[in-house]
Amino acid sequence: MHTQSKLLEKLQDGRKGNLRAADCPSRSVLDHVTSRWGSLVLLLLLNGAQRFSELGRSIGGVSEKMLAQSLRVLEADGLVLRTVYPTIPPKVEYSLTQRGREVAVHIKSLTDWVEENTPEILELRSRPSKPHSG
Amino acid sequence: MHTQSKLLEKLQDGRKGNLRAADCPSRSVLDHVTSRWGSLVLLLLLNGAQRFSELGRSIGGVSEKMLAQSLRVLEADGLVLRTVYPTIPPKVEYSLTQRGREVAVHIKSLTDWVEENTPEILELRSRPSKPHSG
Repeated sequence: MHTQSKLLEKLQDGRKGNLRAADCPSRSVLDHVTSRWGSLVLLLLLNGAQRFSELGRSIGGVSEKMLAQSLRVLEADGLVLRTVYPTIPPKVEYSLTQRGREVAVHIKSLTDWVEENTPEILELRSRPSKPHSG
Repeated sequence: MHTQSKLLEKLQDGRKGNLRAADCPSRSVLDHVTSRWGSLVLLLLLNGAQRFSELGRSIGGVSEKMLAQSLRVLEADGLVLRTVYPTIPPKVEYSLTQRGREVAVHIKSLTDWVEENTPEILELRSRPSKPHSG
């Protein structure tokens, strides 16, 4: 297993990731923000802080386990903030950090495009395709 | 297995996908364009048409099988165009369609952000985190 400092050494020019390089840790960052549940969590938190149960209700098909894991990963990357309010019982809310908001805006442009274009893409998929010659 | 026309019926308002819905086919479109190899293929083709072998050399860690599969999926979604030139041996090139270019621009904004922010995210990950209370 790599320690994070070893991962930092893997950044080829020390200041930036390079997603084309097989061992560049930027690939793990991209994975976290584009994962099925990670991307939807970022999108939903753009609308403001939410509780775990609210997120779970808004995201069709996510299990509690996968939602918790996605939130932990985004929190560890400094994209999501977990705030515990000292009420009884404690209230826990998730929100975007400044950096999380930045990436969520990029995710939203992408997902808006996907939602807009899905009907035409499905039509295309349903047309018979020419067989490949090789 | 769903036929594509059944998938089209699943679009809740008939004109747009809804990524929050568990069975919305827009999720498969998002998967294709954000998959590890799919996203890098889109990025690289933004620079112009490329041959299979060029793409393979540019993307660290991809196998021929996975690259071929990613290209087929993007082609079926109408994002990548496969052109066979009638030379001997035939020359095959991959390029972006108009729609593919649109989504590739969104992917590029996202991946530029990821590459820029990876160093600081790795630093954050290496800091000890507070244990969760629940």
